[in-house]
Amino acid sequence: MRLAMIGLGRMGGNIARRLMLGNHEIVAFDRDDGAVAELVSEGATGADSLEDVVARLNTPRIFWVMLPAGGPTQDTVDRLIELAAPGDIIIDGGNSFYKDDITRAAAAREKQIHYVDVGTSGGVWGLDRGYCMMIGGDKETVDLLDPIFDTLAPGYGTIPRTPGRDTTDDRAERGYIHAGPNGAGHFVKMVHNGIEYGLMQAYAEGFDILKGKASEKLPAEERYDINLPDVAEVWRRGSVISSWLLDLCAIGLARDSMLEQFTGRVADSGEGRWTIDAAMEEAVPANVLTAALFARYRSRVDATFGDKLLSAMRFGFGGHVEMPQ
Amino acid sequence: MRLAMIGLGRMGGNIARRLMLGNHEIVAFDRDDGAVAELVSEGATGADSLEDVVARLNTPRIFWVMLPAGGPTQDTVDRLIELAAPGDIIIDGGNSFYKDDITRAAAAREKQIHYVDVGTSGGVWGLDRGYCMMIGGDKETVDLLDPIFDTLAPGYGTIPRTPGRDTTDDRAERGYIHAGPNGAGHFVKMVHNGIEYGLMQAYAEGFDILKGKASEKLPAEERYDINLPDVAEVWRRGSVISSWLLDLCAIGLARDSMLEQFTGRVADSGEGRWTIDAAMEEAVPANVLTAALFARYRSRVDATFGDKLLSAMRFGFGGHVEMPQ
Amino acid sequence: MRLAMIGLGRMGGNIARRLMLGNHEIVAFDRDDGAVAELVSEGATGADSLEDVVARLNTPRIFWVMLPAGGPTQDTVDRLIELAAPGDIIIDGGNSFYKDDITRAAAAREKQIHYVDVGTSGGVWGLDRGYCMMIGGDKETVDLLDPIFDTLAPGYGTIPRTPGRDTTDDRAERGYIHAGPNGAGHFVKMVHNGIEYGLMQAYAEGFDILKGKASEKLPAEERYDINLPDVAEVWRRGSVISSWLLDLCAIGLARDSMLEQFTGRVADSGEGRWTIDAAMEEAVPANVLTAALFARYRSRVDATFGDKLLSAMRFGFGGHVEMPQ
Amino acid sequence: MRLAMIGLGRMGGNIARRLMLGNHEIVAFDRDDGAVAELVSEGATGADSLEDVVARLNTPRIFWVMLPAGGPTQDTVDRLIELAAPGDIIIDGGNSFYKDDITRAAAAREKQIHYVDVGTSGGVWGLDRGYCMMIGGDKETVDLLDPIFDTLAPGYGTIPRTPGRDTTDDRAERGYIHAGPNGAGHFVKMVHNGIEYGLMQAYAEGFDILKGKASEKLPAEERYDINLPDVAEVWRRGSVISSWLLDLCAIGLARDSMLEQFTGRVADSGEGRWTIDAAMEEAVPANVLTAALFARYRSRVDATFGDKLLSAMRFGFGGHVEMPQ
Repeated sequence: MRLAMIGLGRMGGNIARRLMLGNHEIVAFDRDDGAVAELVSEGATGADSLEDVVARLNTPRIFWVMLPAGGPTQDTVDRLIELAAPGDIIIDGGNSFYKDDITRAAAAREKQIHYVDVGTSGGVWGLDRGYCMMIGGDKETVDLLDPIFDTLAPGYGTIPRTPGRDTTDDRAERGYIHAGPNGAGHFVKMVHNGIEYGLMQAYAEGFDILKGKASEKLPAEERYDINLPDVAEVWRRGSVISSWLLDLCAIGLARDSMLEQFTGRVADSGEGRWTIDAAMEEAVPANVLTAALFARYRSRVDATFGDKLLSAMRFGFGGHVEMPQ
Repeated sequence: MRLAMIGLGRMGGNIARRLMLGNHEIVAFDRDDGAVAELVSEGATGADSLEDVVARLNTPRIFWVMLPAGGPTQDTVDRLIELAAPGDIIIDGGNSFYKDDITRAAAAREKQIHYVDVGTSGGVWGLDRGYCMMIGGDKETVDLLDPIFDTLAPGYGTIPRTPGRDTTDDRAERGYIHAGPNGAGHFVKMVHNGIEYGLMQAYAEGFDILKGKASEKLPAEERYDINLPDVAEVWRRGSVISSWLLDLCAIGLARDSMLEQFTGRVADSGEGRWTIDAAMEEAVPANVLTAALFARYRSRVDATFGDKLLSAMRFGFGGHVEMPQ
Repeated sequence: MRLAMIGLGRMGGNIARRLMLGNHEIVAFDRDDGAVAELVSEGATGADSLEDVVARLNTPRIFWVMLPAGGPTQDTVDRLIELAAPGDIIIDGGNSFYKDDITRAAAAREKQIHYVDVGTSGGVWGLDRGYCMMIGGDKETVDLLDPIFDTLAPGYGTIPRTPGRDTTDDRAERGYIHAGPNGAGHFVKMVHNGIEYGLMQAYAEGFDILKGKASEKLPAEERYDINLPDVAEVWRRGSVISSWLLDLCAIGLARDSMLEQFTGRVADSGEGRWTIDAAMEEAVPANVLTAALFARYRSRVDATFGDKLLSAMRFGFGGHVEMPQ
Repeated sequence: MRLAMIGLGRMGGNIARRLMLGNHEIVAFDRDDGAVAELVSEGATGADSLEDVVARLNTPRIFWVMLPAGGPTQDTVDRLIELAAPGDIIIDGGNSFYKDDITRAAAAREKQIHYVDVGTSGGVWGLDRGYCMMIGGDKETVDLLDPIFDTLAPGYGTIPRTPGRDTTDDRAERGYIHAGPNGAGHFVKMVHNGIEYGLMQAYAEGFDILKGKASEKLPAEERYDINLPDVAEVWRRGSVISSWLLDLCAIGLARDSMLEQFTGRVADSGEGRWTIDAAMEEAVPANVLTAALFARYRSRVDATFGDKLLSAMRFGFGGHVEMPQ
């Protein structure tokens, strides 16, 4: 199929490449001319404005927007709704908040433009491994786009099939699902990221406990100096907790068992927080996912004001009133 | 009554003072001669060894041990069991682990010596306010010691009576209870401290959220620069969350609304951890008490190894493999 | 002063009463004619519609809206903005979300109407104890309303003064504060409720651990059958964790130590959740407040789907694949 | 090598089988004669008592104990220490608490008997996939047993190698490690299980949030009826959160998307709790692992006493004092 890729960053560029490898035609656009030129050199058609993008596509036009969530995506979608014709399709493949999808889809619908939200997992490995996609939108549009998703998805690969699955719809087994109406794609992707936070924190705490076992505060006979790279490696083999994230732990620890290049200040993106919001809207307890998010918040400050208040209270009942300093 | 106070630190010294104010006779002993001398100047009889303590009491002797939990208390109790005669009473008024009480009481019982564990709350304010006491031991011994507990306890004071209480035993209303057999006193005190951690952390998080509301990362119209000393103060008046710990918050914030004399590194003593152990033995979920304890652990390190591992994983799937530094 | 009380439920009715006791004049309105009649019998002027309320006040009119948050409050405020004249004042004394205050105040401002948000704590005890109030709005309006707040607040009472306070503004000591611009009043009240959840859960977990200590699964010598009403009572006396909420625990346990009239299904209102939202917006870790909220969610379901999924996984690696039932 | 397998349950039986497939000789013993007979039919030598086991091995004898942790393992190890000769080796391959290993190894050492603790992961899949093993003990003994571990381990298999590993010791890549001195093997396995709890709970909460998104309490346009088996399946393909546990989720959900055969009451074994104990001993915050454990505790009760106490407090400040029922 012929479609535009708007936003040629790490994700957008590689998605475009994988599509071209699958014989789709890409109209490439980015604010950065160099990114456009690079993709043109690999076979894409370049565009120098959204208007130009529109001109270089046939109806129904397909626009894949792959930009940072929030302002950049919103502005571009707004502009595309103005430029597009009835029947055209706007795909938001970024990390948008699913409620924004609902709003945007309604705005697009007023102009008979179709909107599809695609939560995309795979990171920099996606070009080779394929992208895991969770898709929201109306059935006809999602079906029409199937050749695109089929190309981007990992496919069956070497992953053993799950016993007992009903096989009338094998898209999930090939790496993509039609999750539901607008927003559902990003919603499922959002929960994916929420789970990701929880899984990561579980490994983090476990390795922290392993490392802490060498502490000189412990009795000598209960102290172990454990080889963490080896532990990560061995758990990849036949243990219950093998996973792709554990593979990444093993890679990181093999490179530097002390992880000294990292400060321990950990960023978070919106999905973790939105997942907790969703849990609260549904009244679902989500202690693990929340604790994982809060651990990142905590990692980014030296001391909290709350910690100081604890000390102030202890100071109050502990009897050092005379000596505030 | 006549009894020995062994350990004249901040707690032991004041307990002895409050007892003397109530016309009890104190035989005072401490490794620090100065502490003994000070108490002697206030009317106590000094002793210069445990043997001397024993000699200066009449049977049945009453020893109140008020020493740091662990080794100091254990060594002293062991020695007292050797020195004491059948019928004598050893009181551990410190912060011992309740399972140690069970062991010690059994050892004492073999020599027909009575053992009583007293969890004591009140801190430096106890001399004036009185001490809240939770007592474990056999009924006869606890009853025999009643004049001591009666003196130490706050008494009815001005605290409004709880409607609907059965009044045959009014000891709880006067500030002490016989919680059960040996260990029960320290067990109840331990849970008291576990709750204390949870309460403190609830205030800490709340004030942290109030303070964070001035952050420049928030939209200007949603930003408030809230007067924290005033908030603590107003909540003392008719709010649902008024408490003694809130009073201490108000005192601390009135002194310095930024709490700058505190580093934010918060200590913990054994009770918080033992409370979680008890919860796990009983299979009782205790998310709040545990989170409160862990917040203190976290406050004492700049970065956890786990945080660094999160970064290593993010680095792994985020595509910066080529640039570890 | 003369003002309207709109909404004569438990809170609104008593606030009106306390104001009349302080010689303010109340125009009383409620959908329920009986509630109006009752207040009229106590000295209020009745009104039978918002228009009637408007007619019965002098400019600048003061409307105190005391209705359920959300629709009822929003509809009434919207209507009052239509009916009011420049200079009039609308007070929302309910439990509104603070961001709604910001929106409403902006709408009112366009018509030169002043909007004041008042977070009110005190529950059914407020008529006697007074109400703790956290107020958001512009300084002139809040100052103008001072006689009202002064009457409603608890006043100094018998609560000991906090040492070290700067006394130029003693409103906090009398039980109310001007927390900041619009929304700040409800924001501070919201955090108050968030803290309240955390405090309550800390007590809940502690008493759960005390109760669980009688479990027959524990070794006999480590089992205690603890008198919970006595524990709650004794902790009210000189302990570190005394509080008004503990007083309520003591009342509840004195009435029935097994709490058998309660199912254990616990409701939550919006403030707990909004507090977590605020924490996430500020990137403040709030593990305790969140765990307290989630405990309530969990209390309202028999089993979570997540629990079942745990069993499904255990079933998967535990070797019972052949026997799903 | 020739060794005894003591305990022929699901784990012990299959370990023996995998060893025999690797041309080791097994002396098989179990209280259940049928289990012995079955293994004899597959080529093992049967024994009918521990004495008989001893008689049927050559020195240095190797005893692999594969029994439930606690009493059964302790009794057998105690008896083997009595029966064994200097130089013999006792392997505990079960789920013992690592501090018990330290004690037992010391007892064995007094008789010049070697003790080795092996944490074994792999469950019922181990016979085919191989067992992931974490080993504690002295180097000479662990080296001597290498042919056994080599046979049991999964080997390189098809798992991609971790880039950047130092390859002088490739045991971790073949599926087993010498973790350290006695206890270290079970300690690493214990943390493995702690992490397992955290990972499982992260998936559980995520799927709970997905499922809850169909709730009728949500606005219609924000409601999704998500196909959970498809989500689990698609996440197995190229997503960041693919793992063996996710494979198990997919299997379970494919079998029954409602998981109706499960009650939602989830058991836990000692490792989860011991992991939290270790975290507390090291002062390592472990909010996620703890929340995962507590979720299981909570799953096993209908209502907690703590929940009821929350209601009692709400009742206290909410104004229904007159109507306890």
